[in-house]
Amino acid sequence: MNYDNLTLHTDKYQINMMYAHWLQGSHKEKAVFEVYFRKLPFGNGYAVFAGLERIVHYIRNLRFGDEEIAYLRTQEENYREAFLDELRQFKFNGNLHAVPEGTLVFPNVPLVRVEASVFEAQLVETALLNFMNYQTLVATKASRVKQVAPHDVLLEFGTRRAQEADAAIWGARASYVAGFHATSNLRAGMLFGIPTKGTHAHAWVQAHDTEEEAFRKYAEALPDQVTLLVDTYDTLKSGVPNAIKTARFLQSQGKRMNAIRLDSGDLAYLSQQARKMLDEAGFPDVLIVASNDLDENIIEGLKTQDARIDIWGVGTQLITAADQPALGGVYKLVAREKNGEYVPVIKISGNPEKVSNPGFKEVYRILNKKTGKAEADYLALQHEADIKNGERIKLFDPIHPYIHKYIDDYEAVPLLQAVFAQGALVYELPTLEQIRDYHAEQKQIFWPQYLRKLNPEVYRVNLSTEAWKLKMDLIHQHQG
Amino acid sequence: MNYDNLTLHTDKYQINMMYAHWLQGSHKEKAVFEVYFRKLPFGNGYAVFAGLERIVHYIRNLRFGDEEIAYLRTQEENYREAFLDELRQFKFNGNLHAVPEGTLVFPNVPLVRVEASVFEAQLVETALLNFMNYQTLVATKASRVKQVAPHDVLLEFGTRRAQEADAAIWGARASYVAGFHATSNLRAGMLFGIPTKGTHAHAWVQAHDTEEEAFRKYAEALPDQVTLLVDTYDTLKSGVPNAIKTARFLQSQGKRMNAIRLDSGDLAYLSQQARKMLDEAGFPDVLIVASNDLDENIIEGLKTQDARIDIWGVGTQLITAADQPALGGVYKLVAREKNGEYVPVIKISGNPEKVSNPGFKEVYRILNKKTGKAEADYLALQHEADIKNGERIKLFDPIHPYIHKYIDDYEAVPLLQAVFAQGALVYELPTLEQIRDYHAEQKQIFWPQYLRKLNPEVYRVNLSTEAWKLKMDLIHQHQG
Repeated sequence: MNYDNLTLHTDKYQINMMYAHWLQGSHKEKAVFEVYFRKLPFGNGYAVFAGLERIVHYIRNLRFGDEEIAYLRTQEENYREAFLDELRQFKFNGNLHAVPEGTLVFPNVPLVRVEASVFEAQLVETALLNFMNYQTLVATKASRVKQVAPHDVLLEFGTRRAQEADAAIWGARASYVAGFHATSNLRAGMLFGIPTKGTHAHAWVQAHDTEEEAFRKYAEALPDQVTLLVDTYDTLKSGVPNAIKTARFLQSQGKRMNAIRLDSGDLAYLSQQARKMLDEAGFPDVLIVASNDLDENIIEGLKTQDARIDIWGVGTQLITAADQPALGGVYKLVAREKNGEYVPVIKISGNPEKVSNPGFKEVYRILNKKTGKAEADYLALQHEADIKNGERIKLFDPIHPYIHKYIDDYEAVPLLQAVFAQGALVYELPTLEQIRDYHAEQKQIFWPQYLRKLNPEVYRVNLSTEAWKLKMDLIHQHQG
Repeated sequence: MNYDNLTLHTDKYQINMMYAHWLQGSHKEKAVFEVYFRKLPFGNGYAVFAGLERIVHYIRNLRFGDEEIAYLRTQEENYREAFLDELRQFKFNGNLHAVPEGTLVFPNVPLVRVEASVFEAQLVETALLNFMNYQTLVATKASRVKQVAPHDVLLEFGTRRAQEADAAIWGARASYVAGFHATSNLRAGMLFGIPTKGTHAHAWVQAHDTEEEAFRKYAEALPDQVTLLVDTYDTLKSGVPNAIKTARFLQSQGKRMNAIRLDSGDLAYLSQQARKMLDEAGFPDVLIVASNDLDENIIEGLKTQDARIDIWGVGTQLITAADQPALGGVYKLVAREKNGEYVPVIKISGNPEKVSNPGFKEVYRILNKKTGKAEADYLALQHEADIKNGERIKLFDPIHPYIHKYIDDYEAVPLLQAVFAQGALVYELPTLEQIRDYHAEQKQIFWPQYLRKLNPEVYRVNLSTEAWKLKMDLIHQHQG
């Protein structure tokens, strides 16, 4: 069973379309697809783009091996052998551009652009969306947690409730990008170099005759890493007093106990009481970790109640992005080759927000030169020169065109970077630390009103006048 | 990068506890853990157990290789080399019992029971929960969809919105167990033998000059598998009329068009209009597929509105179990070896429903011999004889003890099957088809009131009198 090969991690209709293109001889024609999402998750003001490294590895490893070909041969579509031979030769030879991981991104902004033969471009759709959707979703959720506890230690604890093994590790990675400090998942630690943290479970306490003995034994075993879970029997009557005894024992050994962990009950009250007990016992430096179905709203509430918590273990709600467990990223054809030239294409919908933005586009982040802050993201057709030359541009709301402004003194930062050029990787993948740092810096270029958790201001994403006119023309063309 | 090895797919605290047990010499002592969940998801009346096959493969492949050992050596815990050597020798030598996949299961019923050295039993906790939680969750969600469309064809279409690659395939498998008919994910098809289905995307239509041409070309390529997506431009004005032309073309070739697919707009109205147009054109046998963020409630609503839909493509809402994306399965120590004997242990909580049920237990499904229907699940301590001998047992509600009844004429079916015995696989894994059939049969032994989607009757899960007394004794012991 070939579990490693992700080439068939795709929807069957991709193979069917590849087959139909191949039969009609159009499979080598170029196509341009854009990946974007239409709506921000969690009511947040931005999303945190993540998933590119996973996409890069996926694309480099695409190949139809014997097992994949043999499987396709069994399908009711009866693909011709010559088509299967074509698949055997498959290699991604296209261009791929993407926004760097950690970038703050917004609805309708192309995050990945694939320019490749339609044969190649169809195959990769499903996996690209699957990878980008999940990591971007979790990074965005993690960023919201980071907002409410910017100075605290944040631990990702979600593996047991993650949606299977891949989600556990890629979710841990996405959380780290957004500013979390460690994960409990050792495999994520091994594969990505994320710091890992872990203490003990209730079972450790239950496996001893008394809680006191369990704590002492744990402190003897790992004297430099002692965080004690204090709620197996009774947090304040038994757990915290026994933890204090252990802290004294460690002190007598010249060691410092790191923390206690609260995992149930009223975390506001318990943390205040525990803090008081620890302080009075002479351990003001023993920290308090809290876990138990935390999310950004509960953490914010606990802070409002003056909970005395230093470290947050965030699990289920983060790793599943529980309040909105899917980002609706899509992959839409915007241009296709016809007689050797690109023609723009559109997808119409009765739902205005679902009408695609046609044409081969570039994305610019418009920075105000005076403030250094981002004013808007600007989508222009690739050939448009004014933006490249720094000339005056018009930002306008296509639904309410009277809302508009002209911008002169700006820097236009292209967001899409070349990742693959004719199939060759031309992008130096940043390290995870670099991505995390870049993300932290990114937040500085946005005014706080775009970043706040509740009712953020809507950041402008505008089409250039020319791109907007193209869209209107194509709509009228299809309606007429 | 060793991506295949899931041995470190665990929380760091498991390794820390293993280390501490090893240091204090208790790592070979036996422990008994139970996996169960406390609350049913989605307000459903039952859950569908799934994930066992994944667990079996995981346990058989557990080994600490060079890369895992080298990684652990870098950790700040400074594990001793002799411990790492012990890990190198690691193999699961314990016993594992589990409920068969596809079984209808209920809160607080042990679904997996691990009896092994505490060293082994701690390592596997995280992965067991991760696998069981996700597949059981999705199988349960799929079962709800099946309830509202028991006679329709159900397709799992969620890969692009799944929480990463593993979720896509294991979610497809779980859906199939619960009665779905096919998935769009080819890798799931290849790995598990699930039938796969797929048609074409909007991009296929956009890649041609006209919709009519696109449909015709698709029909020429795959004449036996034609399902046409009709909403790229305008469903009723353009899509359906062009599909009818294609159906006529296929008819002229002696072929039958399979279906059209609606993917946006008012599915009730559009399906009724499309049905009428197809019927009037002489194609009453061309089916209608619907997709677009469907779940059991939307499908039920569409049926109430007399939508004319034959095949349902269910994606995001199913594969992420969107209304409750995590099953809160837990893994609790219920007994541990002390001086060569098992002693029961408990976890207390301020939350009564979080107090664990102590003791080494068996689970029986009590079937009424007259009706053949399930009356209750009954958790008894392993040594209890009355239930094994078919003697009168008492079912009672421990919170409201006056609610009780005696049962005489019953069959007590043990739910937990031996899977591993002293590390050897002793369970013949059923095929996926057998699991799916078994699941369908399972539903027959429950009265419909337990199975309904909204406000189902609560199925009884009762402790034996002796198991209940043990629990009370241990609570009092810890409180005194």
